Amino acid sequence: MTDLSRFVASERTRMLDELKAFLRIPSVSTTPEHTDDCRRAAEWLSNHLRNLGCGRVELLGGEHHPVVCAESTPAPGHPTIVVYGHYDVQPADPLALWRSPPFEPTERDGNLYARGATDDKGQVFAIIKAFEAVGANGGVPVNLRFLIEGQEESGSGVLFELLQHRPDLVRGDAVLVADMPYYAPGWPAVEVGLRGMVYAEITVRTLEGDLHSGLYGGVAPNAHETLVALLAKLKSPDGRIRIPGLYDAVAKPGKEEREAWKQLPFDEERYRREEVGAKALTGLARYSVFERLWALPTFEIHGITGGFTGVGAKTVIPAEATAKVSLRLVPDQRADTVVDQLMHAVASAAPPYADASVRILSKADPVLLDVGSAPFGLIDRAFQEVEGRRPVPIRSGGSIPVVPALAAGGAPVVMAGIGLPDDRLHAPNEKIALDQVFKGVRVFGRFFELMAGLE
Amino acid sequence: MTDLSRFVASERTRMLDELKAFLRIPSVSTTPEHTDDCRRAAEWLSNHLRNLGCGRVELLGGEHHPVVCAESTPAPGHPTIVVYGHYDVQPADPLALWRSPPFEPTERDGNLYARGATDDKGQVFAIIKAFEAVGANGGVPVNLRFLIEGQEESGSGVLFELLQHRPDLVRGDAVLVADMPYYAPGWPAVEVGLRGMVYAEITVRTLEGDLHSGLYGGVAPNAHETLVALLAKLKSPDGRIRIPGLYDAVAKPGKEEREAWKQLPFDEERYRREEVGAKALTGLARYSVFERLWALPTFEIHGITGGFTGVGAKTVIPAEATAKVSLRLVPDQRADTVVDQLMHAVASAAPPYADASVRILSKADPVLLDVGSAPFGLIDRAFQEVEGRRPVPIRSGGSIPVVPALAAGGAPVVMAGIGLPDDRLHAPNEKIALDQVFKGVRVFGRFFELMAGLE
Repeated sequence: MTDLSRFVASERTRMLDELKAFLRIPSVSTTPEHTDDCRRAAEWLSNHLRNLGCGRVELLGGEHHPVVCAESTPAPGHPTIVVYGHYDVQPADPLALWRSPPFEPTERDGNLYARGATDDKGQVFAIIKAFEAVGANGGVPVNLRFLIEGQEESGSGVLFELLQHRPDLVRGDAVLVADMPYYAPGWPAVEVGLRGMVYAEITVRTLEGDLHSGLYGGVAPNAHETLVALLAKLKSPDGRIRIPGLYDAVAKPGKEEREAWKQLPFDEERYRREEVGAKALTGLARYSVFERLWALPTFEIHGITGGFTGVGAKTVIPAEATAKVSLRLVPDQRADTVVDQLMHAVASAAPPYADASVRILSKADPVLLDVGSAPFGLIDRAFQEVEGRRPVPIRSGGSIPVVPALAAGGAPVVMAGIGLPDDRLHAPNEKIALDQVFKGVRVFGRFFELMAGLE
Repeated sequence: MTDLSRFVASERTRMLDELKAFLRIPSVSTTPEHTDDCRRAAEWLSNHLRNLGCGRVELLGGEHHPVVCAESTPAPGHPTIVVYGHYDVQPADPLALWRSPPFEPTERDGNLYARGATDDKGQVFAIIKAFEAVGANGGVPVNLRFLIEGQEESGSGVLFELLQHRPDLVRGDAVLVADMPYYAPGWPAVEVGLRGMVYAEITVRTLEGDLHSGLYGGVAPNAHETLVALLAKLKSPDGRIRIPGLYDAVAKPGKEEREAWKQLPFDEERYRREEVGAKALTGLARYSVFERLWALPTFEIHGITGGFTGVGAKTVIPAEATAKVSLRLVPDQRADTVVDQLMHAVASAAPPYADASVRILSKADPVLLDVGSAPFGLIDRAFQEVEGRRPVPIRSGGSIPVVPALAAGGAPVVMAGIGLPDDRLHAPNEKIALDQVFKGVRVFGRFFELMAGLE
């Protein structure tokens, strides 16, 4: 039994109590009524890290939703590891669907149920306990810098702002991000790619004001009809996005990566039926599901406003209609380029009698990490030693907008978490498997040791 | 000066006071809080008609929004005229846009401003005063039966139900409907056609539940995308509705009618700019504006629900999307046939992975009246005598669903009103021109005389 395993075995009960205390704080960042709770979660973390021996612990970025920045005792000349995570959580609604209260962590069948259990308090906690575990064994010669933010679920504004003024905070030899799941139980994963995003509102105006469809129907241009025709032009039924130039920068994943994806256990029929819940999967049929999810851009319509959407019938010709849409981007697309391409496509697709405009709500570049970096090799080895299986290199179809900012200091980013695919993040009955938490303590502790050059 | 002119001249002030009293009752039928006010308006009318000598006055169809049914002293063997109108009004919102309170009738520049002034209290009042005027001159040998309903703005449910059980109420020699405007100031009009309507919700479901666009975007079918593609298939950019069979029953207006429309004073450029408020008129370009408005079916999208329509960005792949749509129908289309055609078209246009359904909210057949009927000739002559110009035979693009039920007794329907095109019905600052009211007293009085065979 390694020292890390011994630590986990002896401290298990205490660690569980601590994690429960952290999870009891309803640090929801998306609604203002929990701003004080977010502050409490930040203070809980600061105190905890100070007690574990971090000499310099600060709440940065202002009064509300501060970034917890904590540094271990300096080990000059030794590697620096930046640990990113977040203490804020999603809202718990709909409450009625929770089997136990979202902020009263409850154990059932080896899982701990609570809002934030896997996203991201449980994973942040595993890294902190890994730091404690290596410290309990005499410490290792690395510099740890925790950057735990409180706005991941609401745009990361404070952290973005902070990193603009303090680029030094992400300088180091590795950035560890553990806010993601295994590929499957027993199948650890390292995420090497994230999709970027452009979120926009496309608005079409055809009339000065709404008109009565009886009196003017037949000659008055209908904003919804115009918007629908425009949106239909932007994507073919076969799934190809008709935005000129959009695919130009799309880089095909390398042969090795695609081969690795083919080795992943995957039952497409079960996935379609049980996970997606659709009669068919759509998208570009000549690409595999993983390629469509991880290596191709998307164009989605999220909702359409304007006109009459109440109960019953109202015979209005809408003057204005707006579609909320987003594109997911893949390497080597750039968000700014895609914004231009979208604006051009909308302008070209709109008929001359309509005013069409595009408002950008958010944008983020895609991320592709260097699998050849030293930290990547070390996390690979840490997982292999603890789990008995090398982590599979996968990508995520989702976006973590802050990752490019974390990479801006030049330190290789490693994205590897300990969640499981059925953890129900953002949904009722979110949980984390306790075995995964304790496995995480060992994996991340071993990663710190390996970064320090200890065998 | 005729007797009718003398009556109008001598009774003008009293009539105006009476009309104001009628307009002060906020008989809004679309919201339950005005149910009692609707009842008060019905009672005001009953009392008024009783005082004018109607022997049999009843409130029919139940407690709420009753139909006022009043019959003049029977003149056996003489013609019966059914007078249709409504005492309910549209809501007055937005209140801030009214220059004087909507339920405090106010004279300005020869107009009377109030909610319901033109739609339809002022026009109903003109007919009642015409009845009084001919009575003041000794009466005429006709049987008048007033059927004034209180739900025209909310579906006419009580009246439809009543006529099912009392088809006798619409039996007679003419049905007079005065709930419409002149074609232009000085240009009286007789409406010979109304469009019908099918109002429906088209719903598309592609997933069991909403999904995250990061995790599933690229393979999960998006309900809004599917709905948009489906709707785009139902209408060409040139304005042609792509519902198979839809145009089969469309009857081209006769040469005489089209020639009459060509004679109407009409400035298309001014209409586009000032009335429609669009950069261009749309629809089937090879047809005139009047043909597009009055003699061709339409397909309009009124609004789209589902997905995320709140403020900001939410990255959801919607599982379900619903479009509120309507078709206006023209002679000789039948609403039931069009419902079938719409359902077929939606089923054919939906991809196999989507569940598409159509829910019908309301339907009404179009109306085309016989311009050769005797009452039509008589209203023509009444207008010519009073206004000095024959009324122009026009159609309306709108629908009055109750008209087919009024015609069901076999009596020819005459639709001719005294509003003006700028009366702003359903909008703030609704008004009626006082000259039009008093002209109406003379026109309708003369119509009664002519129906009675008096020269």
